[in-house]
Amino acid sequence: MKTSIATVCVSGTLADKLHACAAAGFDGVEIFEPDLLAAPESPEEIAALAARLGLSLDLYQPMRDVEGVDEEAFAAVLRRAEAKFRLMRRLGMDLVLCCSNVATATVDDDAVSASQLRRLGELAEGYGIRIAFEALAWGRYVDDYRRAWRIVELADHPAVGICLDSFHMLSRGHDPAAIADIPGDRIFFVQLADAPLLSMDVLSWSRHHRLFPGEGGFDLVDFTARIVAAGYTGPWSLEVFNDTFRQTDPRRTALHARRSLRWLEDAVARYAPDATVSRPDIAMLPDSAAPSDVDFVEITAEDTSSVEELLAQLGFTPRGRHRTKPVTLWTAGEARVILNEQHARGQAPRLAAIGFEVDDAEAVDLRMHDLRVPRAYRRTYASEERLDGAVAPDGTEIYWAQAADEGDPAWVREFEHGEPPRESPVLAVDHISLTQPWQVVEESTLFYTAGFALSLDSRTDVPGPQGLVESRVLTAPNGAIRIPLNVAPPILAERGGDGPTVLPQHAAFRCTDVRALARAARTRGFRPLEMPANYYDDIAARFDLADAFVDELRDLHLGYDRDSAGEYLHFYTRTIGEVFLEFVERIGDYAGFAAGTAPVRLTAQRGR
Amino acid sequence: MKTSIATVCVSGTLADKLHACAAAGFDGVEIFEPDLLAAPESPEEIAALAARLGLSLDLYQPMRDVEGVDEEAFAAVLRRAEAKFRLMRRLGMDLVLCCSNVATATVDDDAVSASQLRRLGELAEGYGIRIAFEALAWGRYVDDYRRAWRIVELADHPAVGICLDSFHMLSRGHDPAAIADIPGDRIFFVQLADAPLLSMDVLSWSRHHRLFPGEGGFDLVDFTARIVAAGYTGPWSLEVFNDTFRQTDPRRTALHARRSLRWLEDAVARYAPDATVSRPDIAMLPDSAAPSDVDFVEITAEDTSSVEELLAQLGFTPRGRHRTKPVTLWTAGEARVILNEQHARGQAPRLAAIGFEVDDAEAVDLRMHDLRVPRAYRRTYASEERLDGAVAPDGTEIYWAQAADEGDPAWVREFEHGEPPRESPVLAVDHISLTQPWQVVEESTLFYTAGFALSLDSRTDVPGPQGLVESRVLTAPNGAIRIPLNVAPPILAERGGDGPTVLPQHAAFRCTDVRALARAARTRGFRPLEMPANYYDDIAARFDLADAFVDELRDLHLGYDRDSAGEYLHFYTRTIGEVFLEFVERIGDYAGFAAGTAPVRLTAQRGR
Repeated sequence: MKTSIATVCVSGTLADKLHACAAAGFDGVEIFEPDLLAAPESPEEIAALAARLGLSLDLYQPMRDVEGVDEEAFAAVLRRAEAKFRLMRRLGMDLVLCCSNVATATVDDDAVSASQLRRLGELAEGYGIRIAFEALAWGRYVDDYRRAWRIVELADHPAVGICLDSFHMLSRGHDPAAIADIPGDRIFFVQLADAPLLSMDVLSWSRHHRLFPGEGGFDLVDFTARIVAAGYTGPWSLEVFNDTFRQTDPRRTALHARRSLRWLEDAVARYAPDATVSRPDIAMLPDSAAPSDVDFVEITAEDTSSVEELLAQLGFTPRGRHRTKPVTLWTAGEARVILNEQHARGQAPRLAAIGFEVDDAEAVDLRMHDLRVPRAYRRTYASEERLDGAVAPDGTEIYWAQAADEGDPAWVREFEHGEPPRESPVLAVDHISLTQPWQVVEESTLFYTAGFALSLDSRTDVPGPQGLVESRVLTAPNGAIRIPLNVAPPILAERGGDGPTVLPQHAAFRCTDVRALARAARTRGFRPLEMPANYYDDIAARFDLADAFVDELRDLHLGYDRDSAGEYLHFYTRTIGEVFLEFVERIGDYAGFAAGTAPVRLTAQRGR
Repeated sequence: MKTSIATVCVSGTLADKLHACAAAGFDGVEIFEPDLLAAPESPEEIAALAARLGLSLDLYQPMRDVEGVDEEAFAAVLRRAEAKFRLMRRLGMDLVLCCSNVATATVDDDAVSASQLRRLGELAEGYGIRIAFEALAWGRYVDDYRRAWRIVELADHPAVGICLDSFHMLSRGHDPAAIADIPGDRIFFVQLADAPLLSMDVLSWSRHHRLFPGEGGFDLVDFTARIVAAGYTGPWSLEVFNDTFRQTDPRRTALHARRSLRWLEDAVARYAPDATVSRPDIAMLPDSAAPSDVDFVEITAEDTSSVEELLAQLGFTPRGRHRTKPVTLWTAGEARVILNEQHARGQAPRLAAIGFEVDDAEAVDLRMHDLRVPRAYRRTYASEERLDGAVAPDGTEIYWAQAADEGDPAWVREFEHGEPPRESPVLAVDHISLTQPWQVVEESTLFYTAGFALSLDSRTDVPGPQGLVESRVLTAPNGAIRIPLNVAPPILAERGGDGPTVLPQHAAFRCTDVRALARAARTRGFRPLEMPANYYDDIAARFDLADAFVDELRDLHLGYDRDSAGEYLHFYTRTIGEVFLEFVERIGDYAGFAAGTAPVRLTAQRGR
């Protein structure tokens, strides 16, 4: 389908925005009037730039407060409109958005609004321009698309149609079923925005908190499918007012936006096969299931010896060194940790890459390509396993490889001179927490949901000593992949450059008996992150635990949580560079991450 | 009055928080339980630290979900409570906050809640502890302080009283009149928080957006006065959950918090003289009116010659050099601009200081001292005028001096070898815009409102090419002082260190005839900030202006705005270093700042 985006979605000057939207692969843009007014280029120059970039100029917007006014005010509306129609001709544009009246309406009468829209349409027609009338969610009299459609029907002019905007309809809870009553060729334009389900005044919600499709709580798939079913064939256009996207690099935001539309297209094709069967321009993404398991976790550093020491204490086996690179492999159970000293000059240990096992590596590859995800590159030599990967928005590299039928994956054989695997209480990777700069967390979420079919399970705010950390958990349906994304408060993100990394990343490993592991590690010289004594007094009171058990937890510096599904025992290593490890034991069906312990951990890490 | 603050208001570890609150002059603190749990110090060590710092430990909080439960659940409540009472004894504390039940309540019956509170009170009494019961705004059954008070009355136990929290009452719009029904000695504790008047779900509003008194939309003065009138003599304690304050330096936030309570104390004393006459501990701040005028604007740089060139082009007269410092004075009409090259090594021009004329400099001085505002220091020599000043939260130095009866202020005579003042279309300083890092804007607002009796007039979001800029305008009642505070979006604040200053400060000067000034300046070689042609097409259409007038505006790069009160014509200089100048003409009673032109200006500045 044809894709479009309002210039207000991204930052920069109008020329910056056009370049960014074209580079991201959009077919066209909506010109948001304030962007044009502030631009030093003339309308003709903007039109020429768009043509050169291959962008159509789909919609000029917005024209406000045009109907529901008295005749004197309407004369001024026509005067103002004519100046804008002339401007639109200079831009070579033929469609303008007219919003329902917010400020100047005095006449609450469909017939009056329709008559005024018809006369505006007659004027527009003379300039070869059409009008798309939109009900704003906070319009003074017209705030519902069903009423806007009645007015358009009454206006009964070929140059007057309707614009449907998902935010204005779904934020008010208006039933989209009546879209079916509107002939497709009377829908002149469609604007798409998602949004988190906030309970706040709709104007602030709209102006600051919109999101790209798939990132909020609206059912945009159903909404869009209904519009396709109604016969609409025009652009699917994004109009997202968002305080963060207004600040970030426009090239990056535009790519993110374009990816969200591709995700939506795929979802609509799957959701409404009947409506899309005759629309070859609405295509699914290549089929690929969520990853079946974590293949490896990679930690990079100029010198990884401090991590090696930790892994040895914690029951991992050194499986040797890669035959062509300064890379070593450590395993325990199904958990594989790669330590990489290549291209890591001056780098303290950090969690640099994750490998997923997938059922169909080729399909993931095609899917990532279709989503225009930037690729990660690893030099491989003849006779080595190929590794396909992508760069996640936070910079972490994510690789995927065909799951082995049984035993170790093929690439393990590239490691030489190691020890044979031995028994370990460590079973596998349990979860991997990735710190997100606040600017990229929506893009990261879409990266994992659209790219790897993970789903967003939960959101929690964890209070730390330097601010609230939002934690959102992405999981695979089979439970084998769990990725909490932790959003650093701006103040930590700012200090990141020179101060200590106060919000490190971490990998957690699932064990059979975490207390046995902690004891064994201690005999090998391991010193865990120390949990404060007050914490143990509290869990004893909170969970009514036996004294001996609490003494054991305290002695080993273990955390504890319990819910109706089961229990969770765990301990943390100290932070090395920008990464730490966690070892966990899940009892029963406990599926959480001990959110109650996290604030204590954050404070303990700060004191290190 | 006795002041207190919940440790959750500020960032850091519990020990950091105690140090910060003591340094800011608080008498005591509320211990927020999660802070204690995460602390490595034992309860006895925390008690000893507080004692050493001179802080009382006023309230342990919160104990949740204690009433409205079945008897089996209540047995667990008592078990849990007893562990906490023991902990409180180790801390030497005797008052605990019990919130109305949110999670586990199953019995909606005042008698049951009262009976359970009474039994809890009996248990507490054995430990020398009292219970303050609080209705949370989102309590399952008890969400109104009037119901909480009925339950406390029914409980009828000396160890059971009520806690009144301004947020929980005022966010729900509950009438505070019933406070008068509660005997002062049954009010065991008072928690104070302000908040912006947001229309959003009360839980999110409470957890993220609370503010210190005087910074939001609640009538805390009336609220507090009623509590004083009821006979309450305990601490006034701040409990402010705020995402920003959780991140910022705790010493700074604590001082800011303490200052807000001093402001509130003053306001209560003025508002309710009858209730406070017998309370010598509730005192007014020294009386001082808002400044009557701007005395000077100071621009600092290693080399100020580029600013001198601008001022000469724009009709300012060089009035000479200071007799002891590398400082020059330029004036036009009543506007005085000081250019200061002292202590400015490597510094590009920036707006470093503002002088106010005040009616009673001594009173302002005392007031600032009472508010614990950090002082600015200027070396002055014998026979020079003394200059008193304070450092605003954004680092700008604000000075005040006794207004001269007529003519130039006395300090002007310290400048030598200048030219005599000459006629100029420039009349005076119109307004001064100060860029605020997002972390300090609330503190800055309180600095001007409490310190200088300015009032917060308006808030606008101005869309710029790199994000929304919140602009809040502070004014003096006589209109002579206008200070828009512009909050940089985080992404600009972050780049501030190394990139260009994308959100410069500016001083605006009021003129008799701004078009004449622009023409005259042009003959002297002045080149204004260029406004785009598209802007003029738009204002012609929007305001229905005559072509010749628009041509003149376009030719001179003037901005234009009009509202029902009058008109505004203005132009900007280019940015020099981190500062630019604006020249404005106000026609009629236009009181705004051409918010419509600001986005165009922000884009034009970016392209410089």
